[in-house]
Amino acid sequence: MNDVNQSVLSRASVETESAVVERWLGSLEAALRDRSTSAIAALFAPDSQWRDLLAFTWSLTPHSGTDRIAAAMAGLQAHVQARGFAIAHNRTAPRRVRRLGIDVIEALFQFETAVGRGNGVLRLPADKPSQAWVLSTSLEELKGFEERIGGRRPTGEEYAHNFGGDNWLDQRTKAQTYADRDPTVLVVGGGQAGLVIAARLGQLGVDTLVVDKHERIGDNWRKRYHSLALHNQIQVNHLPYMPFPPTWPKYIPKDMLANWFETYAWSLQLNVWTSSEFTGATYDEAAGSWKAVVRKRDGSERTLSPRHLIFANGVSGLPRIPSLPGLDAFAGEVVHSHSFTDGSPWRGKKVLVLGTGNSGHDIAQELHSCGADTTIIQRGSTTVVTVDPSAKLNYALYDEAPLEDCDLLASANTYPLVVKGYQLAVERMVEFDKEMIAGLIARGFKYDIGEDKTGHQMKYRRRGGGYYLDVGCSGLIVSGEIRLLQFDRIERFVAEGALLKDGSIRPADLLVLATGYYSQQDYVRRILGDDVADRVGQIWGFGPDGEMANMWKRTPQQGLWFNAGGLGQCRIYSKYLALQIKAIEEGLLPRR
Amino acid sequence: MNDVNQSVLSRASVETESAVVERWLGSLEAALRDRSTSAIAALFAPDSQWRDLLAFTWSLTPHSGTDRIAAAMAGLQAHVQARGFAIAHNRTAPRRVRRLGIDVIEALFQFETAVGRGNGVLRLPADKPSQAWVLSTSLEELKGFEERIGGRRPTGEEYAHNFGGDNWLDQRTKAQTYADRDPTVLVVGGGQAGLVIAARLGQLGVDTLVVDKHERIGDNWRKRYHSLALHNQIQVNHLPYMPFPPTWPKYIPKDMLANWFETYAWSLQLNVWTSSEFTGATYDEAAGSWKAVVRKRDGSERTLSPRHLIFANGVSGLPRIPSLPGLDAFAGEVVHSHSFTDGSPWRGKKVLVLGTGNSGHDIAQELHSCGADTTIIQRGSTTVVTVDPSAKLNYALYDEAPLEDCDLLASANTYPLVVKGYQLAVERMVEFDKEMIAGLIARGFKYDIGEDKTGHQMKYRRRGGGYYLDVGCSGLIVSGEIRLLQFDRIERFVAEGALLKDGSIRPADLLVLATGYYSQQDYVRRILGDDVADRVGQIWGFGPDGEMANMWKRTPQQGLWFNAGGLGQCRIYSKYLALQIKAIEEGLLPRR
Repeated sequence: MNDVNQSVLSRASVETESAVVERWLGSLEAALRDRSTSAIAALFAPDSQWRDLLAFTWSLTPHSGTDRIAAAMAGLQAHVQARGFAIAHNRTAPRRVRRLGIDVIEALFQFETAVGRGNGVLRLPADKPSQAWVLSTSLEELKGFEERIGGRRPTGEEYAHNFGGDNWLDQRTKAQTYADRDPTVLVVGGGQAGLVIAARLGQLGVDTLVVDKHERIGDNWRKRYHSLALHNQIQVNHLPYMPFPPTWPKYIPKDMLANWFETYAWSLQLNVWTSSEFTGATYDEAAGSWKAVVRKRDGSERTLSPRHLIFANGVSGLPRIPSLPGLDAFAGEVVHSHSFTDGSPWRGKKVLVLGTGNSGHDIAQELHSCGADTTIIQRGSTTVVTVDPSAKLNYALYDEAPLEDCDLLASANTYPLVVKGYQLAVERMVEFDKEMIAGLIARGFKYDIGEDKTGHQMKYRRRGGGYYLDVGCSGLIVSGEIRLLQFDRIERFVAEGALLKDGSIRPADLLVLATGYYSQQDYVRRILGDDVADRVGQIWGFGPDGEMANMWKRTPQQGLWFNAGGLGQCRIYSKYLALQIKAIEEGLLPRR
Repeated sequence: MNDVNQSVLSRASVETESAVVERWLGSLEAALRDRSTSAIAALFAPDSQWRDLLAFTWSLTPHSGTDRIAAAMAGLQAHVQARGFAIAHNRTAPRRVRRLGIDVIEALFQFETAVGRGNGVLRLPADKPSQAWVLSTSLEELKGFEERIGGRRPTGEEYAHNFGGDNWLDQRTKAQTYADRDPTVLVVGGGQAGLVIAARLGQLGVDTLVVDKHERIGDNWRKRYHSLALHNQIQVNHLPYMPFPPTWPKYIPKDMLANWFETYAWSLQLNVWTSSEFTGATYDEAAGSWKAVVRKRDGSERTLSPRHLIFANGVSGLPRIPSLPGLDAFAGEVVHSHSFTDGSPWRGKKVLVLGTGNSGHDIAQELHSCGADTTIIQRGSTTVVTVDPSAKLNYALYDEAPLEDCDLLASANTYPLVVKGYQLAVERMVEFDKEMIAGLIARGFKYDIGEDKTGHQMKYRRRGGGYYLDVGCSGLIVSGEIRLLQFDRIERFVAEGALLKDGSIRPADLLVLATGYYSQQDYVRRILGDDVADRVGQIWGFGPDGEMANMWKRTPQQGLWFNAGGLGQCRIYSKYLALQIKAIEEGLLPRR
C-alpha cells in the first residue's frame, strides 16, 4: 500500500508542475498572439537564455536577456505564427530538477508554426516560476513533409508483390547508379556524419548520394587501431531511426560500429558509392547547383550537378604530418596514427609515439601491451579525464529519459550555459581523478583543464582535440611503464631515434605520429579553392554568437553545408540540417 | 479545456479498472498463499480458461473450467510459490475492451515464483468482474539468469580497449570456430526459427551453434521467387531484441528480410555455420548428449556433442514432389516452387502451376505478369483471403499496444478461445471478400473456410498450408486471365502437357510444382530414424490438449526440441523454449 500512496503523491506533485508550465505556456501563447514585446518580456527572467533551432529564425540562434529575447520573438512572430504551445504529449512530464546548480521546473513542450511543428524545453526557476530562465524552440518537422516512419511508413507497393516488375532489390540497385538522374544532395564522406545526414534527407524525400573513398562502409572505423572502442557509452551514441541493439556492450568496439554502419546504409536505403573520391566542385550561381566531380572505383569520373554539397568528412579527413627536424634521417619506421593498426610486430622493439590525444595514448598503450619499449612524446598541454567515472558525468543527462527527450534537453542551452555546465562537471572530474592527475604532473606531464576550466568537451568543440579519455594509459605513465618525453627536449631526429638537447639519444625502431588531422577548413581550401574558403571562413569551433561556426546551418557559400562531430552530435544536428535543405527545396526558405 | 476534462475522466475510469484488477489479484495472492482450492475456485467463472506458459507447469499447459483450474493451481503452488501479483509496471494499463464478443476488463500483471518472474493476462467479465474468464501466466525470466540487455548490457571490457589482446572481432571469429569446445545447443536451420532461438539462448548465456545448408544467412528467403514479400504486416513480424527500422515498408520484400537476417546474426553475435549440413545424430542416454554430425563447407565432417538439438528447419525444409502419372513423359521443364525464381524467361510460353497455396498463386501471377499463358491447377479445396482488408483482421490486436504487450495478449488464449477468435474474424472476412469468393466459385474454384470455419490461420497451424492470401491472383482467375484447371480433370501428363480426361490436351512448356514441403515429422524420421520418430509422434498441428504438438516444449525424446512458424510465432515462443533449456542446464528443471 505504501507504493500506491507514493505513486498518488508523486502524481499530485507532477500535476502541480504541469499546471505551472501550462500557465506559462498559455501566457506565451497570448503574448505571441498579440505580438506584444512587453508581454513577452514579462515572461523572461533578466538573465534568461533562448536558443532557437530553426523554428523562429531558420538557423541555430541564441538570444540572451529579456529585452533581446522579447524584441526578437515579437518581431519574428509576424512570419513565424507560433501557436499551440502545450506540454508535449507522450514525453517526459514536467518535473523538478537541478540544472547548473539551480532548482527548476523543467518541461518539454510542443508548438506549431506556419510551416511546421516544433518542440522545446522550458526551465522555470523553482523560486520564481513565472519567468523563464531557459527556453529552447526547435523545428521538428515541416507540415506536409513529415517523415515516413512508424504509422506513416511506406506501403512498399511499388516493389512488394510487384509481379513481373522490379522487386525491391532491383529498384535499390538501379537507384544507386544514378544512371538517368543527378542527386539533389551530394554528401562527401560516409562515416557517421555522412550516413546520418543521408538518412535524415532520405526520410524527407530528398535524393541524396554519399561518396566515400574507402572500400567498405565503416572502414573509417574498421581500419583504425586494433584495440579501438568508443570512449563514451552506447546510450549517447545511437544513430537516428536505428538504435543499437539492447544486447550491445557499453563501449562499442570499432568493428562492431563499422559493421553497423554498413547495416545502417542498406537498411535505411541510402545511396552510397564506396571507393569513390570527391575531387572538386565549382558552384554555378545561375543554375543554383554545383558541378561536382567524383572519381569512381573503376577510375572513371562522373560530373554531378547537386544543388547541395555537404562535407561530412571533417574529423578523420587528411592526416596531419608535422614537419619534424631531421625526420628524413630517422632509420626506423614512421607511421601516422591513421594507418597504425597493430602493436604485435613491435614486441621487444623501441617505439616513440608523438601526441597525447586519445589516439596517441591508446596506441602507446597498445604497443606497451604488446611488449614494446614505449615512450609517449607530449607537445602541448593535455586534458586527461578517466572514462569512468569522470567522462561519464557529461552524459549523465542521458540516463534520465528516453533518447529523444535527452537530445532535446541537450540542445537547449546557449553558450554561456554550456560553459557553466562543463565547468561544474569538471569540478567533480578533477576531484574524482585527483590522484591520477597528481601522478601525471609528478611525472612532468603537462596537464590542464582548458582555458576556462571547461575540460575536454569544450576542447573538442573548440579545436577537435587536446585531451585524453583515460582507459589505462595514464596509470602506465604514472608508474613509469610507459615513458614520457616532452617534445621540447628533442633537438632533432637522427638515424637511431630522437637526439635530445642534452646530447643523449632516445633510440627508436618506430615513430607513430598521433598528430591529428587537417581541419575541415584546410580541406575546403584545398578542394574548393581560396575564394570559397575565404568566403566561408571558420568551420567548427565557436563563432562570435556562441554557436558552432558554419556547422549544420547555411554558410556564406550558397549550397555548401557541414556536418561533423561525434555520433551524438551528428544524430541531433543532422535533423536540423536536413530540414533546412528540405525547406529550401520546397521554397519555404530562401537560399542565403 | 474539453481535452483536459476528458483526460481526467478517462484516468478516473482507468483507476476504477485498476482497483478491480488489484482486488482480484490480491484475492488470488491470498488464495495461493493458503493453497486453498475453494478460494481459488471462487475467483474463476464456470467457463474459465487458464493457459500456463512454464510458470506453474514448466510446459505450455491449458486448463478449462473452475474445478480443474483450482485443483491444478492449488496443487502446483507448493513448489511454484507464486506471489507478488500486481498490475504490471510500465505496461498497458488495465482497460475495458471487447474480446470474442464479451466486454471485459483486461489487465497485464506481474508476479514471481520461487525460480523466476512472470507476466500474465487477466480478463474479468465486465458484468461480473469478481470471477476471471481468462487467465494466462507466463514465465519471463529466471532469477539470477536475467537477460543482459539495456541496463544489464555487458560492459564489453573483455574486448573493448583490450590493449595487446584480442579485440571483439578476434574473439567473435575464434568463438565461431568451436575449435576447443562443443556447443551446448545445436540448432539445425538458420532461418527465422533458428536465428531467433539462437538469439534467445545467447542472451541466457547458453552456448549455441546454428548450422544452415545455405551459402548465406537469409538465403531461405533470398533465393525464392522474385516478387516475394511477406503477406502480413511488419508490426507483427519483428524479431526479438532488434525490431525492424521504423522506416521500413508494411510488407517486407524477401531480399530486405534476408539481409536483415544476416545483420541479425552478426549483431546479436550468433554463431552460425553456413554451407553446413546437419547429417544425423544419435542420443547418448548415459552422457545426456547427442552425437551430431555436421558436414562443413569444405566437405569435412565435424561430430559435435550438444546436450540439446533444436530443429528449426521445418517450414521450408525438403520440397515435396508428388507422384504424377506420366510426368516422366512430359517434354517441358518441371520445377518445384522452391527453386522457381523468375518468370521473365517464360514470356509467350504456356505454363502450368500445380498448387493453389500462396506459392502457387504468387508464381502463377508472376508468370502471367511476365506474359506467360498461365494455368493454375487446383488439387484440394483452398481458403482464399484478401491480404487487405481481411487477413489483417487476425492481427488487429497488434495495433493496440506495444509489441511485448501484444505478444502477451496474443498468447493468453487456450484452444477453444483461439478457435472462437478465428471464427469471429472469418465471419467478417467472408463478408469483406464475398464478391471475390463468388467470382472464384463461379469459375469452379474449390473454396472453403476450414472444417470449423476458422479460416486460413487454423489451416496454417493445423497443417501448414491450404490457403492463399490474395494479393491479386484471385482477380486474375475470376477474370479468366489466369486459367483454372481442376487436378481431377487430368488423366496423365504427356509430352505436350496435361492430357485431360475428356481427351483434350492442355499444352505446356513449364510445370511448376507448388506442392509444398515434407513435414517436420518426415524429416525427423529420415534424419533421426524410426525409433525417435515413433517416440516423438506428431509435430506441429494441435495435440489432444489443444497446444501445438511437440512445439516449443520438451518432447518425448530427451534433448530434442522444435521451433517453427512465422516470424511472430518464433518471436513469442522462442522465449519459452530458451527458458526451458536454460532451466535444464541450471538444474532447475529435470529433463523429461
